[in-house]
Amino acid sequence: MSERPVVRPLPVSGFPEWLPHVRLVEQRWLDEVRRVFESYGFCPVETPSVERLDVLMAKGETSKEVYALGRAQGVEADRLGLHFDLTVPFARYAAQHFADLVFPFKRYQVQRVWRGERPQDGRYREFTQCDVDVIDVDGMSPHFDAELPRVVHEVLTRLDLPAWTIGVNNRKVLQGFYEGLGVPDPLAVVRVVDKLDKIGADGVAAVLAESLDQARVDAVLALARARSVDEVAALGVTSDLLDEGLAELRFVLDELADLPEVVADFSVARGLDYYTGTVYEGRFTAWPEYGSICSGGRYEDLAGSFIRRRLPGVGMSVGFTRIFAKVLAEGLLETGPASATDVLVVLPKGRRGQARATAAALRAGGANVELYHQEDKVGKQVGYASRRGVPFVWFPPFEDGRAHEVKELATGVQREADPATWSRRA
Amino acid sequence: MSERPVVRPLPVSGFPEWLPHVRLVEQRWLDEVRRVFESYGFCPVETPSVERLDVLMAKGETSKEVYALGRAQGVEADRLGLHFDLTVPFARYAAQHFADLVFPFKRYQVQRVWRGERPQDGRYREFTQCDVDVIDVDGMSPHFDAELPRVVHEVLTRLDLPAWTIGVNNRKVLQGFYEGLGVPDPLAVVRVVDKLDKIGADGVAAVLAESLDQARVDAVLALARARSVDEVAALGVTSDLLDEGLAELRFVLDELADLPEVVADFSVARGLDYYTGTVYEGRFTAWPEYGSICSGGRYEDLAGSFIRRRLPGVGMSVGFTRIFAKVLAEGLLETGPASATDVLVVLPKGRRGQARATAAALRAGGANVELYHQEDKVGKQVGYASRRGVPFVWFPPFEDGRAHEVKELATGVQREADPATWSRRA
Repeated sequence: MSERPVVRPLPVSGFPEWLPHVRLVEQRWLDEVRRVFESYGFCPVETPSVERLDVLMAKGETSKEVYALGRAQGVEADRLGLHFDLTVPFARYAAQHFADLVFPFKRYQVQRVWRGERPQDGRYREFTQCDVDVIDVDGMSPHFDAELPRVVHEVLTRLDLPAWTIGVNNRKVLQGFYEGLGVPDPLAVVRVVDKLDKIGADGVAAVLAESLDQARVDAVLALARARSVDEVAALGVTSDLLDEGLAELRFVLDELADLPEVVADFSVARGLDYYTGTVYEGRFTAWPEYGSICSGGRYEDLAGSFIRRRLPGVGMSVGFTRIFAKVLAEGLLETGPASATDVLVVLPKGRRGQARATAAALRAGGANVELYHQEDKVGKQVGYASRRGVPFVWFPPFEDGRAHEVKELATGVQREADPATWSRRA
Repeated sequence: MSERPVVRPLPVSGFPEWLPHVRLVEQRWLDEVRRVFESYGFCPVETPSVERLDVLMAKGETSKEVYALGRAQGVEADRLGLHFDLTVPFARYAAQHFADLVFPFKRYQVQRVWRGERPQDGRYREFTQCDVDVIDVDGMSPHFDAELPRVVHEVLTRLDLPAWTIGVNNRKVLQGFYEGLGVPDPLAVVRVVDKLDKIGADGVAAVLAESLDQARVDAVLALARARSVDEVAALGVTSDLLDEGLAELRFVLDELADLPEVVADFSVARGLDYYTGTVYEGRFTAWPEYGSICSGGRYEDLAGSFIRRRLPGVGMSVGFTRIFAKVLAEGLLETGPASATDVLVVLPKGRRGQARATAAALRAGGANVELYHQEDKVGKQVGYASRRGVPFVWFPPFEDGRAHEVKELATGVQREADPATWSRRA
């Protein structure tokens, strides 16, 4: 027992953990996320943390730095890896359980994901994502393109974050515009524009200039600067695909006109190949370089690698840990005590049974109650409540015939009370 | 898009996942667990899923079949592994954050854990544990030996499970009794008795007979059959350690005398070396061979491998997935619809804005609301609610000046209602 410790208990870089007073707030946030998702009719799904490596790699995601599982003791594990997002597991889930789901299928999924990246600001190796997707069979209503940013808007609003915006664009606008310009490979331009926040407008211009003339480079950058459908129309480029994209985008923006934080942003490209229509990306206003705090878009087919049915959908992912860690690091997280306890019940000498019954009565009324653990002096018991940040101390009668009393530590006010009816909020 | 799927979406053995209607119940169970833990003043802690392998192996746990992390792409990861229980991470956490915690430190922790075991009935490779522990510095009140089974008793009661019991014993009783018998290595006998449920009384007797005479073997088995402190006293064996153990056990049983499911059970041994006093083990009454559904005990020192302070404590772990999966497999899980949606709001032709405002008003009142996604015929919209198991359908006025109406699908009753004040429960 008293031997020298053999292992130093150090944090592991990229794997965040919080003290209890911070974890309490994180838990409240996660409750809020879930409440909002359910209030829009999304149902909860969890998948294993682990998928077969062929499932994880089905889209050729070799760059994601997947953590594969092995056995510490040298035995070979099956070819399994930790999921690096919640989209691939959801695609596998939808394909596997296709016959048991009702479409359009609206699901949310709040889980940890793992990426073997180099840890840096806003990048973790283990973090929580909150994903929300709607998928349907063969075709899907544009209604959901507008519903998803509304849901995420409400989530971000409820978390009471520093200012943010959700930029909305449409891949058809980008590709249609580049087509209208006569660009030979519009998708390649999308991928370059997607790097705007990493390499800046000059960097993008330099890359584009390798294959496009100056007028076209200028036009591509002018589109990225536009912040309304009218501004885009004024650029004078036309194509059928552009018109289709602008109509879709206008529908989404009109539906969300009551939300000032949702804005048209033609620099949002979302480089991933599978997006085909609406795309989204949210950022903190004060820290645009911190990266996206939520993102997503519409895809033509979710689970093509796993099932011969076409499942189009639209989804968004909230970077929960990225947001939470930033707010914490900026000193903007309002935390309280390290426990959710409302009341400490004092244990009077020789009256353990009565104190236990008092605690039970208070719990039955919905309070979180700690019963003090030994017959210490009352001052010591109250001091414990104070150190722990417990707001109320309850005194069961120290002799028969006396009344219960409760003291609020913040104000010092002490009064008679009945454990059967007391409430912290009364 | 229409290519043949390349990967079959199969379940991975030992990694359970549920359909949404089952996940909704699991989520409700997890809420209940957390609510009960917090109602006794335990604070939430989460740790990373991953620890350094030297931390995981600090107690020489080579038999636990730890999953180590590697890189799918051939790059070596740090020496990290997935935690196989929540005790080792908690010990590391307590040591690492020692200066920031208030003692006695009461924490609960609900997380997935991983074990590379062969999957079988009640054994998974990924499963959720609900741990609750109290640790203190140098010494700890016996109050908590009695509080922990009370907390777990309340959890199991709230989950409305098939009949179960929590057996309580004390390692000092076992070791003191064996000492009193003149057994040379009492701890070795504890480990053999721990195999009672696997190899039966005959099996235990055969192993013990290798080192003990028949009278002692009989006495060891007589103790294991005893179900009260008086029965043990009647066996006529004495030792100081036995007296101490019986006094501790009597205190715990007296404190829990109001809970008929908590029973003295001298066959409970908990083979792990670190238990030194009270030990617990819960089982389903109808399926004793299914293994323990909760277990734990008192230990002299939690984190000796990591810190030079002695941190005694007492803890219990609820085998959440094991319990949930059993209740599900036995057909005893009461499930409802596949979503938590209360109301589907019908989308009348040309009145999208009004329908959206109606949905928002209902959500503001606390309801979970789906807004139908396109202007289909009303019958189709109602059919969708019915297929999804949504209990109420809301009809916003189809023309100005008419009233809102809501229909309960189960009863067919339809009546006027105000979205600003309606509640499902009214």
